[in-house]
This record gives sequence, C-alpha cells and structure tokens, in this order.
Amino acid sequence: MSYDSDNVFAKILRGEIPSNKLYEDEATLAFMDIMPRTDGHCLVIPKTPCRNALDATPEQLAAVIATAQKVAKAVMKGLGVDGVILEQYNEAPAGQEVFHLHFHVLPMREGVAMRPPGKMGDFAEIAGYADRIRAALA
Amino acid sequence: MSYDSDNVFAKILRGEIPSNKLYEDEATLAFMDIMPRTDGHCLVIPKTPCRNALDATPEQLAAVIATAQKVAKAVMKGLGVDGVILEQYNEAPAGQEVFHLHFHVLPMREGVAMRPPGKMGDFAEIAGYADRIRAALA
Repeated sequence: MSYDSDNVFAKILRGEIPSNKLYEDEATLAFMDIMPRTDGHCLVIPKTPCRNALDATPEQLAAVIATAQKVAKAVMKGLGVDGVILEQYNEAPAGQEVFHLHFHVLPMREGVAMRPPGKMGDFAEIAGYADRIRAALA
Repeated sequence: MSYDSDNVFAKILRGEIPSNKLYEDEATLAFMDIMPRTDGHCLVIPKTPCRNALDATPEQLAAVIATAQKVAKAVMKGLGVDGVILEQYNEAPAGQEVFHLHFHVLPMREGVAMRPPGKMGDFAEIAGYADRIRAALA
C-alpha cells in the first residue's frame, strides 16, 4: 500500500482546497470534518505523508496523538461536552476513505448516538463549533 | 476526574485477575478483549496509571499508540484481515466503562459490521485468535 499525494487531506495541507482550521504546529494540523458524525467532529493529521497508522513512523503517531489530546480537551471545554471518542480507520474494510493518516475527534453527549457517515454538514453550524473549539484552544 | 486503582485493567496489570496476553514491553500491555465487538478484538494499555487520553502524559500516549500499531499489523497478518480500527473512549458519555486508558484494536472484514458492546465472547474462540496474533508478533 502506497501513499497517493492526490488525496483530499494532502490538498488541504498544500492549500489547494479550503478547510476550517482549528490548530496547527510543526508536525500536525487539526480542522473540522465537513461530514460531522457528531456536532463538533474534527480531524487531526500529520503534515508529512503517510497512508494510515500502519505505515506511520513513531514520530508521526506521537505527534498526531498529542495534538488529538489537545483538541479533545478543547472540544470538552469549548463545547461543554462530557465525553470524546478518538477513532482511526486503517484501509477500506475499516471504513478509511481518505488515505492520509487521520484521527477523528468526536464530541459525545450523553444519550446522543453518532450519525451515519457520509452526510455533508451545515457549514455555518460547523463554523460555529469551530469558533468555540478555537476559543478553548487559545 | 481521578484514577481509581480498583479498575479491572489495574487488576490485570497487578496479576489479580487473568487476561489473555498478546504482547508487553516496559511501558505497555496488549491483551484480548473478553467482549469482542469483532473477531480478534484486543486492547492496548499503559502499565502506569491514567484514566484516559485526557489525563495521559505524552509519553504514555506515544507508547500506547506505538504498541497499538504493532498489534494492528500483527492482527492483519495473523488473522488475514484487510482493515483495522483503532478506537479510544474518554469518559462515560463516550462509552468508557473501564477507567484506565485503553485503545481498542478492532480487526475489520469487508461487509462485516461491529457487534454491539457488552456481550461476553467464547473463551476458546478468543484464545484461537490470540494464538494467531501472538504468532504474527513473534
């Protein structure tokens, strides 16, 4: 399995397509998922190429999970939720659709289930959640 | 939120209750989940206390994700599956039931969905999957 640099997240990293960015450091970028499975669903990726957690280096994994922790805390504080799921899919049978390593950060509310994948969210709503997460990160 | 050393995984680490161990190093332990949501479902935990990914140190997170990668690769090789999901729950509204940081490693097969949580698996079957994962790790 190899890395295809035409994937959507590689294009976001190159600035070829837009994203609603939450946070970045030297090694990672966090931004909003445009098909949110829960309100405030966001993603964390490494800035360097790897397909998923199977071919990632220890450095890529450590950097991405550290940023996922930071974003998870900001999600809880900024959105006032009491739980967060971290999820990461490897290869198509596991549900991976974009082949650049990414961790899902999913705010969870008591009694509210995840929505099915693949449905585009409302951009104004997503932007509202992003503002609150960024404020908590600041 | 604090750490309660009476949790099941702390007891496994202290050897007070049994587990089907797959792998261990200085910082982490991998073992079979007894309520498998997919065939071969296993868990990776740090040997030192933390409640979940929210209070974990960067070192605990990096060690656990590195072992999760190792186990994920072994799962694919040993069980002949083509996909793996890594999942990690933070606090009760996110589905966390044991309050010691753990990553789920879930072997995924094309067209086969996860089973609902909370149902005890067949111990002989689990032992069979464990043997195959250990063989791939060796």
